[in-house]
Amino acid sequence: MDSYPSTIQTDALIIGAGPVGLFQVFELGLLGVRAHVVDALPYAGGQCAALYADKPIYDIPAIKRCTGQELVERLLDQAAPFKPTFHFDQTIETLEQQGDGRFSLQTSLGAHFLAKTVFIAAGVGAFQARQLQIDGLQPFVGSQVHYRQPAAPDTAVPHDNVVLGGEDGALEAAIALCASSAQKVTLLHRRAVFQAQAQLVEKIATLRASGRLRFVEGQITGLRAQQRLHGIVVADKDGEESNIALDRLYVFLGLSPKLGPIAQWSLEMERKQLSVNTETFATSLPGIFAVGDIVTYPGKKKLILSGFHEATLAAFAAMAIITPDEKVFLQYTTTSSKLHQALGVAH
Amino acid sequence: MDSYPSTIQTDALIIGAGPVGLFQVFELGLLGVRAHVVDALPYAGGQCAALYADKPIYDIPAIKRCTGQELVERLLDQAAPFKPTFHFDQTIETLEQQGDGRFSLQTSLGAHFLAKTVFIAAGVGAFQARQLQIDGLQPFVGSQVHYRQPAAPDTAVPHDNVVLGGEDGALEAAIALCASSAQKVTLLHRRAVFQAQAQLVEKIATLRASGRLRFVEGQITGLRAQQRLHGIVVADKDGEESNIALDRLYVFLGLSPKLGPIAQWSLEMERKQLSVNTETFATSLPGIFAVGDIVTYPGKKKLILSGFHEATLAAFAAMAIITPDEKVFLQYTTTSSKLHQALGVAH
Repeated sequence: MDSYPSTIQTDALIIGAGPVGLFQVFELGLLGVRAHVVDALPYAGGQCAALYADKPIYDIPAIKRCTGQELVERLLDQAAPFKPTFHFDQTIETLEQQGDGRFSLQTSLGAHFLAKTVFIAAGVGAFQARQLQIDGLQPFVGSQVHYRQPAAPDTAVPHDNVVLGGEDGALEAAIALCASSAQKVTLLHRRAVFQAQAQLVEKIATLRASGRLRFVEGQITGLRAQQRLHGIVVADKDGEESNIALDRLYVFLGLSPKLGPIAQWSLEMERKQLSVNTETFATSLPGIFAVGDIVTYPGKKKLILSGFHEATLAAFAAMAIITPDEKVFLQYTTTSSKLHQALGVAH
Repeated sequence: MDSYPSTIQTDALIIGAGPVGLFQVFELGLLGVRAHVVDALPYAGGQCAALYADKPIYDIPAIKRCTGQELVERLLDQAAPFKPTFHFDQTIETLEQQGDGRFSLQTSLGAHFLAKTVFIAAGVGAFQARQLQIDGLQPFVGSQVHYRQPAAPDTAVPHDNVVLGGEDGALEAAIALCASSAQKVTLLHRRAVFQAQAQLVEKIATLRASGRLRFVEGQITGLRAQQRLHGIVVADKDGEESNIALDRLYVFLGLSPKLGPIAQWSLEMERKQLSVNTETFATSLPGIFAVGDIVTYPGKKKLILSGFHEATLAAFAAMAIITPDEKVFLQYTTTSSKLHQALGVAH
């Protein structure tokens, strides 16, 4: 975990490193503004990286076909000349406007920003581990129950390990535990089919065949606990219940977006979307802009290409706050030597 | 020249085959609508092809760098599954709304359309040959004076040929004339430097060295004419005048955009731009949409990426006119099997 000893002062803070947040970096960069970017995920790309990294997209203008991950890589590459600073694995917890108009923002990892402008490009919200809904589980989260954490290091592996889920991360955790000194490893999933990479599925099959890994098809219906968690009750598809002994439970139930504290910032909203002015993509609070799937306006379509347009207009509008004494003119990347300089392509 | 025997009925007619017009084809195609496209130039691409085919563009989202021509080819390729019909080398001369709400449009080459919806993606206007401004020239245009026409066929080449200009087309015409049975060929340009491809410039140098081609640096200041055009008066950079005998004059002075008849269609305008509603990109006349550099609205930036967004929203809005009884839902190219079918990528 990074430590943040001091306040980071910035012209622009972007919330969300999805495709629209990344293009926001680029458009601000063209106007001479460097940005910091905060994202709840441990990597850039938002939904494109987390939900459809390998899926094809056909409607990015002039790109006949690309995967979600390819799109992210292209946008990172395009924004690279403007050297954004990414702050991953954290969400913005508080936002307050100071007397001088700047925004004071604090993240869940303790980073503190003072930003002249804020761009909310948070899509459907911050992606967080989907929670396992079982009565009495909460007291054990963090000690015996871990969400989307890789298996613990070799030395401290407890006796009975259960991995819950059928996604890549679940299979990877089960494979890592089997390779460790763990005594017993059980993979528990509601179906005998995994939504994961073929090579992981193959490794799991090999580990099952060798007897190193046990697979159980079923769903957790209850806990056996006294002070410590001792086991779980699992029902198979016919409703038949059995017990599994358990020291550690690793839960991989996918990601679920949460709008989070943004909803508490008194920004004008309409059906859980931020209302924006289509001239500036400003929210109801001057200095805070919003772009991409999180916004609404008459005619709004939740398409990445619209987010690109929105980020562009937001960048221009923000200049009135970032450099109030300078008039900003539209220049073209084809002809402007100033933009060529900024892009690092000047002769 | 194509002949157009009968009226073409279409759901959508797009005026302008520049990048935004091409993406309009794509977005309409995703919604199941096939389009006809009219353009003044003999090829697709608008400004990108005519003015900066070889120049780099850096701000198309997720495309770090491409030339104008590459952008056009990518957009043509992306729109190809929707089989647009292009009508090049012509402009829309008249537009009238019929009793049934459809628009009747006539082109300068005599094509006649009946269109449910019209999309004006005409950029800075229709590109036309820049005219040579010399008193008394007009009566000879079409007989002895030709704008941006390649050299006449071999059999009918007259004695004294003058090609005016320093662009690719001028050099190509001079080279073609030298290769023909033409007696005398003169290339006339205001400077001894050409803005043309290196290989053409080299060929011109070879032809000059061999004596086949004469080059004159200067500007036309007058005509010598009696019924026929016999010669031109040319001033060199010191103002010294001389005469050049002439049977044919081929003029290549570049392209200049003209808004043309669109300005007469009683559409609401603001400073020579079409006013549009940013929810639908409809003009003041229902059924006529406008997108790209030709439109204005609060916050408008003349950027290709904004045109892409505008074309997308215009396509959705047009469906209320094209298929008024069907409700149109936003679908995603990543997941919709209907869109995969339309794109020709279904399994």
